[in-house]
Amino acid sequence: MSGSARLVFVADLEAPALDDDDRHHLARVLRVREGEALRAGDGAGRWRPCRLGPGGVLEPSGEVVEVEAPSPVLTIGIALTKGARPELAVQKLTELGIDRILPLVAARSIARWQGERAERHLVRLRRVAREAAMQSQRLRLPQVSPVCDLPEAASLPGAVLAHPGGDPPSLATTVVLVGPEGGWSDEELAMGLPRVGLGPGVLRAETAAMAAGTLLGALRHGMVAEVAPPSGQGRQGTA
Amino acid sequence: MSGSARLVFVADLEAPALDDDDRHHLARVLRVREGEALRAGDGAGRWRPCRLGPGGVLEPSGEVVEVEAPSPVLTIGIALTKGARPELAVQKLTELGIDRILPLVAARSIARWQGERAERHLVRLRRVAREAAMQSQRLRLPQVSPVCDLPEAASLPGAVLAHPGGDPPSLATTVVLVGPEGGWSDEELAMGLPRVGLGPGVLRAETAAMAAGTLLGALRHGMVAEVAPPSGQGRQGTA
Repeated sequence: MSGSARLVFVADLEAPALDDDDRHHLARVLRVREGEALRAGDGAGRWRPCRLGPGGVLEPSGEVVEVEAPSPVLTIGIALTKGARPELAVQKLTELGIDRILPLVAARSIARWQGERAERHLVRLRRVAREAAMQSQRLRLPQVSPVCDLPEAASLPGAVLAHPGGDPPSLATTVVLVGPEGGWSDEELAMGLPRVGLGPGVLRAETAAMAAGTLLGALRHGMVAEVAPPSGQGRQGTA
Repeated sequence: MSGSARLVFVADLEAPALDDDDRHHLARVLRVREGEALRAGDGAGRWRPCRLGPGGVLEPSGEVVEVEAPSPVLTIGIALTKGARPELAVQKLTELGIDRILPLVAARSIARWQGERAERHLVRLRRVAREAAMQSQRLRLPQVSPVCDLPEAASLPGAVLAHPGGDPPSLATTVVLVGPEGGWSDEELAMGLPRVGLGPGVLRAETAAMAAGTLLGALRHGMVAEVAPPSGQGRQGTA
């Protein structure tokens, strides 16, 4: 809740226009009045100052500005299960500044997201991310990827499995894959990926995703520092 | 989801007995069968191994064990507002190992919790904490304190306001107070408490509480290390 003007996403910064849902939300829910300053963003890091004109029209009041993308890119994979709350995880990971969210099908995923159903879920998760990005004044929308399987996610550079007793979080492993409630299967653990621990407690899937997002974000932002793995042997699979 | 037996809380470890809700939950939801091993805990760090006997009776199968309390004690205060989700914050803070949760009334709290209503809310929050502690195999229940005001919370040793641009999190300030969606008022900020930042994004109240809990827990567990405040001048109000 800084002093900056509220952010709304638009399709075209040259001719910024609110869609019906956003116009309604601004007027009825957020009670933004005519003449108030807003920021119109393209969701990819570019924005320009505007004012809310008569009839809910956006009137540009300045030039387009671009903000640099944060580095390194942070990715959280979340295994989809019956009890999982991927909407909650996507909302929180968006607020926390995570750049890419990978919905995953793991061996112990009960609710398998396939075909048309997967497409509907994806549309919903992307809407959740868009709303959370506006709410948290985030100029770059996170990429919510199509549902993938673990081997596909594991092939990404920097991929690591969240697992109890794993190494401390590190910016050397910026693709943290969070398993389902029942944990990773023996076969999944045997894939040889490095492992990252998220603390002593047993965390629900969505809590583990948020904790991983918080820790990676804090490391990237320099709010905390990395520690060496207790083994002193470096990271399994990356040393 | 480690290999340890499932945890249930009981009133008396000498004569452990399940209450009706827990017996039903174990049998119907978790499908624990007769003869299965369980851990009966008192919620204060003591537990003993048991088996589920006929008729849902708990049969002790070993002596009482006590686990040490983690140190330092970690406290998160959460300002109560209309839009806030204190149940979600309490569930997540319990999973994350936070020891004490303070529901707070801040200047910008809209939904004021008073009298009988406050008591009902508190009972519900404590039930959420108990369920989350069993689910996360946590042997010590967090203390969910009665609703207090900011001056009361601010008087606790180690109290710090979560505020954008504040210092990095530290185990020198283990009582992190998270404000309402609209932020702390000027008067609240003028109280002279040190401030802790939780990252560059604008976080919802419950997300800020979870992020603070994650970072303090990770520092206590040695998974990340503290960094010096960028000012190099030490912490406001504590130097």
